[in-house]
Amino acid sequence: MISFDVWGTILNLDLMLESFIDSLNGLIGKDVSEDVMMVRKRIKELRKSFEIKPGRDFELSQELLAEKLTVDIDVIRRAAAKAMLRIGGSIVMDGVHQVLGFIKDNGLKSVIIGNVMFWPSSYTRLILERFELAEYFDRQYYSDEVGLYKPMKEIFIKPLSEFGVSPREAVHVGDSFFEDFRGALDAGLHAVLISRSRSETLSGRGFVIESIRELITLLKAEF
Amino acid sequence: MISFDVWGTILNLDLMLESFIDSLNGLIGKDVSEDVMMVRKRIKELRKSFEIKPGRDFELSQELLAEKLTVDIDVIRRAAAKAMLRIGGSIVMDGVHQVLGFIKDNGLKSVIIGNVMFWPSSYTRLILERFELAEYFDRQYYSDEVGLYKPMKEIFIKPLSEFGVSPREAVHVGDSFFEDFRGALDAGLHAVLISRSRSETLSGRGFVIESIRELITLLKAEF
Repeated sequence: MISFDVWGTILNLDLMLESFIDSLNGLIGKDVSEDVMMVRKRIKELRKSFEIKPGRDFELSQELLAEKLTVDIDVIRRAAAKAMLRIGGSIVMDGVHQVLGFIKDNGLKSVIIGNVMFWPSSYTRLILERFELAEYFDRQYYSDEVGLYKPMKEIFIKPLSEFGVSPREAVHVGDSFFEDFRGALDAGLHAVLISRSRSETLSGRGFVIESIRELITLLKAEF
Repeated sequence: MISFDVWGTILNLDLMLESFIDSLNGLIGKDVSEDVMMVRKRIKELRKSFEIKPGRDFELSQELLAEKLTVDIDVIRRAAAKAMLRIGGSIVMDGVHQVLGFIKDNGLKSVIIGNVMFWPSSYTRLILERFELAEYFDRQYYSDEVGLYKPMKEIFIKPLSEFGVSPREAVHVGDSFFEDFRGALDAGLHAVLISRSRSETLSGRGFVIESIRELITLLKAEF
């Protein structure tokens, strides 16, 4: 079984963040990009140290941002909706269809394991349906729906339990060193980090690739 | 202040339900319309008797439907996303722009107070942004976000407290007799029921109109 992170791995996070920030700027009337990036960093720190109550990471991100910007949380939710209206096909990372097609053709199960911040997973689901990516996945797991977040071991184990797969038969692919790579390794899975720097120290179960396109070659060589 | 129910009042519920059922039929491969309507009825009964834990009505609707159809809840969530992709401008009820424009022009505050079932409020927000209705509202309140549902008095009072308005200065407009009309009257607001039958017994604070178009005439005459 292969599990995938979604934002930054399958969908272009930078584009969506930019669209979200533009929408916020429009609603609030000033540039809030630095505030957004600070809250984002804070949520990632809190996740890394498991300081967020499971199931609360998405809501907390909206609350902290509303507080930071001294606006009602309704403004954050409106900006998320407006951001969605600007999204086009370029949100899908290059090579994704080929990689997911290869996995499907080889009869491997695949799922999404995604953390949620600022916009709800229902929007991510909508994008995956719209660009015909949802069909490739046997199940989607998001932190706001399952009440667990990466790098908690439980969120990596949950799909394996449900599909009757052992961690050693599973590989998780993602672009975050702590949430995806270390999280999956700590849960006993194989892990593939998508990173342009390739400078990470690897364990026997860890691999680094530069883009998701390289996943096919890696899967052929190593699994 | 005027508060509006959303589905069946501002947006065409029948169209969205149809789209949702079509999507489910496609994913499951059989006609599930009766099951959907039975679960819908059940949720409305549970709300009416306040038997759902506040904040749980949306999730419970997806869970009960998944159980009824013996599918994973992921299928329900995918159907909700697919349903959204089929929605066009006809989802906006006739006359809505005129009514909301009239309210705005007269300097009245307006908000949405919506119960959520099967698809999340984030999708409703997306539709309101897409068809340029969101601008008319000072705030949107949904049961899955605020942790309260209609006909709980608290969900009618919450916007009033936040905007410093007394119940007697407020009117709620909706198409559900128990969730909107009785709920708002019990909370001390004026209430307008949108109903084709016009056969309801009225209290001094209750009015019945046949469609939202008639709201302008009613507001001019009574408020």
